[in-house]
Amino acid sequence: MIAVDWGTSSLRLYRLDDNGHVCERRRSERGLQASAAQFEAVLAEEITGWDDPLLILSGMVGSRNGWHEVPYLPCPAGIDDLAAALVPLQASALAGRRLWIVPGVSDTGSEAVPDVMRGEETQLAALLAVLPRGNHVVCLPGTHSKWVSIADGQVRRLTTAMTGELYAVLRNHSLLGKLMPEDDSRFDAWAFESGLKRSRQTGGLLHHLFGVRTLGLFNQMEASALPSYLSGLLIGHEILASGVLEHTPRLSQVHLIGNDRLLALYAQALISWGVGVQRHPEDLAARGMYSLWQRRLELGSGG
Amino acid sequence: MIAVDWGTSSLRLYRLDDNGHVCERRRSERGLQASAAQFEAVLAEEITGWDDPLLILSGMVGSRNGWHEVPYLPCPAGIDDLAAALVPLQASALAGRRLWIVPGVSDTGSEAVPDVMRGEETQLAALLAVLPRGNHVVCLPGTHSKWVSIADGQVRRLTTAMTGELYAVLRNHSLLGKLMPEDDSRFDAWAFESGLKRSRQTGGLLHHLFGVRTLGLFNQMEASALPSYLSGLLIGHEILASGVLEHTPRLSQVHLIGNDRLLALYAQALISWGVGVQRHPEDLAARGMYSLWQRRLELGSGG
Repeated sequence: MIAVDWGTSSLRLYRLDDNGHVCERRRSERGLQASAAQFEAVLAEEITGWDDPLLILSGMVGSRNGWHEVPYLPCPAGIDDLAAALVPLQASALAGRRLWIVPGVSDTGSEAVPDVMRGEETQLAALLAVLPRGNHVVCLPGTHSKWVSIADGQVRRLTTAMTGELYAVLRNHSLLGKLMPEDDSRFDAWAFESGLKRSRQTGGLLHHLFGVRTLGLFNQMEASALPSYLSGLLIGHEILASGVLEHTPRLSQVHLIGNDRLLALYAQALISWGVGVQRHPEDLAARGMYSLWQRRLELGSGG
Repeated sequence: MIAVDWGTSSLRLYRLDDNGHVCERRRSERGLQASAAQFEAVLAEEITGWDDPLLILSGMVGSRNGWHEVPYLPCPAGIDDLAAALVPLQASALAGRRLWIVPGVSDTGSEAVPDVMRGEETQLAALLAVLPRGNHVVCLPGTHSKWVSIADGQVRRLTTAMTGELYAVLRNHSLLGKLMPEDDSRFDAWAFESGLKRSRQTGGLLHHLFGVRTLGLFNQMEASALPSYLSGLLIGHEILASGVLEHTPRLSQVHLIGNDRLLALYAQALISWGVGVQRHPEDLAARGMYSLWQRRLELGSGG
């Protein structure tokens, strides 16, 4: 089968053997935005040479602005629910193949304001297939970080934090960004740690952000260290608001899913605050799509 | 005398009579940025026809990127301290006149991260000249909102919140802004109130911001109402973090200084949360400069 992780800005393709092992992978810049609504043609081109008859698609490809809108599956939702809710997709340019889209998941249960994810549920499906029963907390850091509570094999609660996007808009468009060097590739561990510590003090995020300016103004921090400080500040606020530090019973670990660079930051923060972590790679998505399809076959609704 | 309130993006000039009454006022778009470092020439032009020999200047004109950098006066600072700390300025294009710059105020006392203001201290000087002794809290909402604690005629604590700037960068550069109509002149009182209420719920600002997206996505709020919701959310978080709601002894009122539109929003929030307000107009700055000069004369250091 072919697993397609198709987001707004990137397209990742995996070819899996019958045991679910990735035997080939491709990566393309043709995310949904760059595909100009020519989804069938783009996909046909990107899988050239792969003749597998089954394709599973996940991510923003199933959103309102994607190829075909697939409704959110409300939580609580487990792997069976997700597997049963796969939606078939017609694609004449890919005649002879079967295509399915994984639905996103919504949380409209406990608060007046709903929350959603699309793509992350597929990474979670891979975890759900192997995690022991019981309670787990998963964090998927990113532009829109997801915090997910799992109980007895089901996604129960979902909370999104706009941490990555806020970092980017402040870096590129605010007064704070103007104080920083263009290149922020240099990570400053001390500054990151200072930002983390600051997030636990009183005053709130809106006030702490102004401190990025005054630390520079009073020469208490070099301009080149300010991006790492801002990163620590935002990640600190995200983790504090997630409630994992006050979890009852006390949490022994958080599962982290994402790229190495970002996971290192979240792991440093969580560990320094007394919570262990277990890291999982980003391409868990491919394994998730395989797990969902296997479960669908077991449920007798292969389609 | 002429009182000059010179900020980054605007220049306001007031001509005061000997009793401190504003008899003429001018407003120009030539803030510091638009003055291209030709400060003397710009000022000489803007006061054409006003022959008063004394000019007091306040605002970012005294900052590192202004005309002449004047060091911050550390708090606690009262009107006497400010009056004594005025700095004379040489300006050959304005020969025969005396020019003075009001210093900004810094708070480096109680936390590792300093805070500063420049311009607001002059508005506060006008209040300090008339407020009864005792404790007061003043809020000056804006791009960088200032919260100031006053005790016995002195500015004791100073806290800045980047509320206005965050609103602007999210409105203009984030995914949230893309969901909103171009024109946000229509104020939606219900949406603003909803944003305020949301700010008091758990989850933190980074999570609450994502709700602006999902409320739109689930058709729970019209796109045209989202800017007011975002405004309520941010102002709510600012007020909550300011600590005024948990003040001991309980605060009967907050002094608000600023433009009518912004003050109406802060007043609505504070009043709905049980704190009274007293509003003061933005052009308190002119009266502040007059008060500072009078005090300087009384102190015998007219210069």
